[in-house]
Amino acid sequence: MRLHVPVALRWSDLDAYQHVNNVEMFRLLEDARITAFWRHDDADLEEPWPTAVLDTGPRATSHTLVARQEIEYLRPLGFTRTPVRVEMWIGRLGGASMEVCYEVHDGAQHFDRTGPTTGGSPYAKASTTIVVVDAATGSPRRLDPRERAAWEPFLEEPLTFRRR
Amino acid sequence: MRLHVPVALRWSDLDAYQHVNNVEMFRLLEDARITAFWRHDDADLEEPWPTAVLDTGPRATSHTLVARQEIEYLRPLGFTRTPVRVEMWIGRLGGASMEVCYEVHDGAQHFDRTGPTTGGSPYAKASTTIVVVDAATGSPRRLDPRERAAWEPFLEEPLTFRRR
Amino acid sequence: MRLHVPVALRWSDLDAYQHVNNVEMFRLLEDARITAFWRHDDADLEEPWPTAVLDTGPRATSHTLVARQEIEYLRPLGFTRTPVRVEMWIGRLGGASMEVCYEVHDGAQHFDRTGPTTGGSPYAKASTTIVVVDAATGSPRRLDPRERAAWEPFLEEPLTFRRR
Amino acid sequence: MRLHVPVALRWSDLDAYQHVNNVEMFRLLEDARITAFWRHDDADLEEPWPTAVLDTGPRATSHTLVARQEIEYLRPLGFTRTPVRVEMWIGRLGGASMEVCYEVHDGAQHFDRTGPTTGGSPYAKASTTIVVVDAATGSPRRLDPRERAAWEPFLEEPLTFRRR
Repeated sequence: MRLHVPVALRWSDLDAYQHVNNVEMFRLLEDARITAFWRHDDADLEEPWPTAVLDTGPRATSHTLVARQEIEYLRPLGFTRTPVRVEMWIGRLGGASMEVCYEVHDGAQHFDRTGPTTGGSPYAKASTTIVVVDAATGSPRRLDPRERAAWEPFLEEPLTFRRR
Repeated sequence: MRLHVPVALRWSDLDAYQHVNNVEMFRLLEDARITAFWRHDDADLEEPWPTAVLDTGPRATSHTLVARQEIEYLRPLGFTRTPVRVEMWIGRLGGASMEVCYEVHDGAQHFDRTGPTTGGSPYAKASTTIVVVDAATGSPRRLDPRERAAWEPFLEEPLTFRRR
Repeated sequence: MRLHVPVALRWSDLDAYQHVNNVEMFRLLEDARITAFWRHDDADLEEPWPTAVLDTGPRATSHTLVARQEIEYLRPLGFTRTPVRVEMWIGRLGGASMEVCYEVHDGAQHFDRTGPTTGGSPYAKASTTIVVVDAATGSPRRLDPRERAAWEPFLEEPLTFRRR
Repeated sequence: MRLHVPVALRWSDLDAYQHVNNVEMFRLLEDARITAFWRHDDADLEEPWPTAVLDTGPRATSHTLVARQEIEYLRPLGFTRTPVRVEMWIGRLGGASMEVCYEVHDGAQHFDRTGPTTGGSPYAKASTTIVVVDAATGSPRRLDPRERAAWEPFLEEPLTFRRR
């Protein structure tokens, strides 16, 4: 099962070639990840994302470190007011780390927050390896049973990259 | 009458002090301006903003230049998933230019797109002077009657800045 | 007397119009300010800037808040490998605050770090009001005699803005 | 042989954790790439980089597309006024594409622009696959003999990533 996260573009994501810049594409993924993985206290976020179980953030007891990233850019993305739809899933759930996989798709205003891929040709495919660390010691800490239970429904095959 | 434009924050808008960076605040204003003033062809933008009459964009016949900006930061803005609400109006409508005024407020998920200020204490007050230029010649061109008619309902007193 | 601070552009400072974006211009000013006002511990910064007396930074006893900014964009700035030259001076030295004034000029590889304006037509003129606050209490604190002595040589007439 | 490219940090490269953000690390690599691969017309860039043979840029006859990127973050990078030193080389030279490899190292004010690695423990290792396309048609075009001759001295073993 995948998460479907809407991410709003900014006009400044475009570079002088008038497409979303290759670096900014990682910014969109960061935004999707923060929506999906962090617990937010905003009263008016209507339904919590199913995976928002990780109590991180600058003042929390756990931090997440980005250890590795990989991306393939498949077609150029222009500016649109409609948020893109980032499909996210977990390709590997390790002891203290996980591999988050993404496909960046055309947005559509109404879509379910979770489900299988909607198909179509993505703008980009990417993966991020995240390590969960204890905020006090900075050392990796094991994912706990509550976290595993929240994330296991989102385990799917990891991405295979074409050009590697 | 004011436009009420929701603008989504990104976690990367925070700087090392964990507040929205002073420069990024101008990014939020740019985003509000592009939502409100540009004509977008996205089929799925449900209702066009009342002021989205300006056919600009890189391939259009008119461009807008930012000639001047001014801002007062009134209180720090932390990260929130709820978009902030940018109240926008036009403080002065000149021959080929206009002064756009803004107040950046706490967001709320449901609010009318136009109306009077909702009050409350803004995070920032700002203004931008925009000049409309002919894309072919680069020279300022006069606002046309259709543009004036669209914008006049949004004329209000310009901001007065406290610290000037 | 003015400080002459070189600030390197990044290609990503350009927006889809292929000029340095109006928001990024404030980023260049932030960079100049951090070079000039913060004390840096880098052993290999050959000569400390004369005004680098402020022991700020996230872990320091003082912070600086940006309270207000104003800018006039005078001509478009394209991408160049040569850093631009930001001329900086202090337009007003208050009890707990100061107004920093800037002109953004064409760079040149060799120039004195301090001196009068080199003349020429700037890309932009701007000012920033900075308030120095006690990091522990968050309250404004008075500039101390050592800070005043370091900054007084850089007091010049504040900028006058044409379009205000 | 490697290129050693100095890249200046900006304070805004830090995120709320007070380290250079994982996305901004790709920005530093973009900056190194533009310094090294693009031909610049700046009269005052003292010595052209040996590889600055590619006549790209928005108005040129060739464009470069970023097709793929991969990175491993090895240790956190804080803010420093000293530019970091990006060691770059070419890991693979294909018909119309190449793989650029990087290591991001501590900067030092004086270092040779080309040479072997200076050793030490990098902050990050990364690679970017670049495709050269004809600007008019958008199709990949073959690297020409002059380009190959300029780049061949910088061919080294491609990076091996630990965590793949």
